[in-house]
Amino acid sequence: MNFFLTDIPERTKQPRDCGLTMMMDKGLSFNQAIGFIEMNSKYTDIIKLGFGTSSISPNVEKKIELYQDAGLKVYLGGTLFESFIIRGMYEEYKDLLRKWNLKMCEVSDGSIEIDHKEKCNYISDLSEEFLVVSEVGSKDENKDLRTDLWIELMQKELESGSWKVIAEAREGGNVGVFGKEGKVKSDLIDQIIKNVPSDKILWEAPIKQQQVWFIKLLGANVNLGNIAHNEIIPLETLRIGLRGDTFFDYINMK
Amino acid sequence: MNFFLTDIPERTKQPRDCGLTMMMDKGLSFNQAIGFIEMNSKYTDIIKLGFGTSSISPNVEKKIELYQDAGLKVYLGGTLFESFIIRGMYEEYKDLLRKWNLKMCEVSDGSIEIDHKEKCNYISDLSEEFLVVSEVGSKDENKDLRTDLWIELMQKELESGSWKVIAEAREGGNVGVFGKEGKVKSDLIDQIIKNVPSDKILWEAPIKQQQVWFIKLLGANVNLGNIAHNEIIPLETLRIGLRGDTFFDYINMK
Amino acid sequence: MNFFLTDIPERTKQPRDCGLTMMMDKGLSFNQAIGFIEMNSKYTDIIKLGFGTSSISPNVEKKIELYQDAGLKVYLGGTLFESFIIRGMYEEYKDLLRKWNLKMCEVSDGSIEIDHKEKCNYISDLSEEFLVVSEVGSKDENKDLRTDLWIELMQKELESGSWKVIAEAREGGNVGVFGKEGKVKSDLIDQIIKNVPSDKILWEAPIKQQQVWFIKLLGANVNLGNIAHNEIIPLETLRIGLRGDTFFDYINMK
Repeated sequence: MNFFLTDIPERTKQPRDCGLTMMMDKGLSFNQAIGFIEMNSKYTDIIKLGFGTSSISPNVEKKIELYQDAGLKVYLGGTLFESFIIRGMYEEYKDLLRKWNLKMCEVSDGSIEIDHKEKCNYISDLSEEFLVVSEVGSKDENKDLRTDLWIELMQKELESGSWKVIAEAREGGNVGVFGKEGKVKSDLIDQIIKNVPSDKILWEAPIKQQQVWFIKLLGANVNLGNIAHNEIIPLETLRIGLRGDTFFDYINMK
Repeated sequence: MNFFLTDIPERTKQPRDCGLTMMMDKGLSFNQAIGFIEMNSKYTDIIKLGFGTSSISPNVEKKIELYQDAGLKVYLGGTLFESFIIRGMYEEYKDLLRKWNLKMCEVSDGSIEIDHKEKCNYISDLSEEFLVVSEVGSKDENKDLRTDLWIELMQKELESGSWKVIAEAREGGNVGVFGKEGKVKSDLIDQIIKNVPSDKILWEAPIKQQQVWFIKLLGANVNLGNIAHNEIIPLETLRIGLRGDTFFDYINMK
Repeated sequence: MNFFLTDIPERTKQPRDCGLTMMMDKGLSFNQAIGFIEMNSKYTDIIKLGFGTSSISPNVEKKIELYQDAGLKVYLGGTLFESFIIRGMYEEYKDLLRKWNLKMCEVSDGSIEIDHKEKCNYISDLSEEFLVVSEVGSKDENKDLRTDLWIELMQKELESGSWKVIAEAREGGNVGVFGKEGKVKSDLIDQIIKNVPSDKILWEAPIKQQQVWFIKLLGANVNLGNIAHNEIIPLETLRIGLRGDTFFDYINMK
């Protein structure tokens, strides 16, 4: 904080294991990435190079190194993992991660169907070499998972070696744990957090009202992802109660 | 203008007392602020460091100085004022304004309830040292003010020393003088401008259709605020009739 | 591509005659334009300085030159053309194009009504000196063209010298070939492409679902425009099947 205020919730310290913020980079230029780090590196933990953007972004290795030098974890969007898997190019994918010096990766099945045992095998194999996050939930708004399946899949993926499981929401925030208009499925989430430690879940929550909802439910140090690069500081103010939506959440009313 | 065109409305000259444009900075980096000034300083009068973002933005004093050196007025969002008030830290707030060399500030009660006499006392006290804007209207979409109360509050705050009164709309443009879907409450606004000089009101209007509506009602030199940093030049084209929405407003049809 | 993947559709090579991407610049700063070029010049063909923004953007000639030096075609939004026409300043408009060293221009009648023969005369006259794009469709959501008229107007404008005809959608993506909520009018478009070569049409498609729809209908090398500066790389991933929405479009399922 740039000045002292009472009644500000304590945030976890970097490098964080919970209270994580993941930013989705869809194609920032090198100078934008420098500016991003200058303003946001204290409030950001993880950078996802969204979907297949890393395949066509110029100088992507240089940008990865820039982020890593700033203490940020970097990984490639799950859609890219799936793009390699569906083409039978798993080994090539691992080679790419190594070539780009990535220490983290995502295993997902949002677009393709992967037998869950096989998915867990990928997690297990990759976790020997990388920090793995795995994503649960389909990108298809018409394919809803049953509540008990959400829980079972998350638990098995954590057992298989995932550092965190990600609850899918896409960039639009309108699938998975959210309904078509971005509304939170609160019953589903209540059941999930009764059965999976909430600090092991990273919630994709690109829309402000979703962020507010999770902060009110799980506190300042909830793990949130798919945050746009220009929404990191606004999100941090929500976490600490310095924006209208969470203004009273930490006030010890006198 | 970069070239001559007939039938362009005259804009007020800087430093403006009306025809104001207020930009909301939610966390621009220093280099973004430099680029912003380069492109937009002629069309911008006031920078609001939105809600509590100034509390956690690195090098915020340097950015304030940069904006001020470019002739822009800078103030901190009203939510931050209220954050200090609810904690009983009014003197600390004034100290912060002085320390950061701010010449302008906002008094608001969008999140907390402040007795209106007390609010006017804050305005009166701060206006001895700072240029004060005060905001009318709740951030709570369920708390609508009666029309006569909007008018009375605005008048009293201006009498107490406010330079301008701000009509609350939030960043989303969906409360106060706007309904839930961002629609303008035109009856309310008609009544307000019959009773309060419109050049003393700064309308928060983040959404293009709201900007268009106010320009059509009050002309090119209406005061507008909560404009995103990348919408300043588009707004200026609306003001002078060089965008489709206001294309015919100044044409002296021949 | 930064790495090899099978089943990636072939994109046309620059300088492209089809597979075009047009970005709408609403007021990028010079440094933002440099960063834009660094990341996106391989995936961008045309820059439109949107509506009247070029009239008030500082150093606009310098920015035009920057884009042109990067191999990008630059033109001024059709609303500016119409602003000159309605003021009876056609010759002044041509002088401006020459002064700014522009090689491309747009002829449109989205805001004003121009007799179609007269519009074709503008196209014919300007095409002797400039690469002309002409736009069909009104900016007024209440003025729908009949299907046969869309086709007839497009054909005549191409015959008059237009390099491409643009199907109007505005920045909001909610008029012309789209309905009020941004939905694609697929029957209209089906009829258009049966009668006008689709590589002669540039579709304004600012919203992702519209881009997806056109890519699915017309393939990776459809001409798309009114793309925001930060959506160029995401669009390119859609074109080549590396984003969820078009993930399966090019997979030769094994």
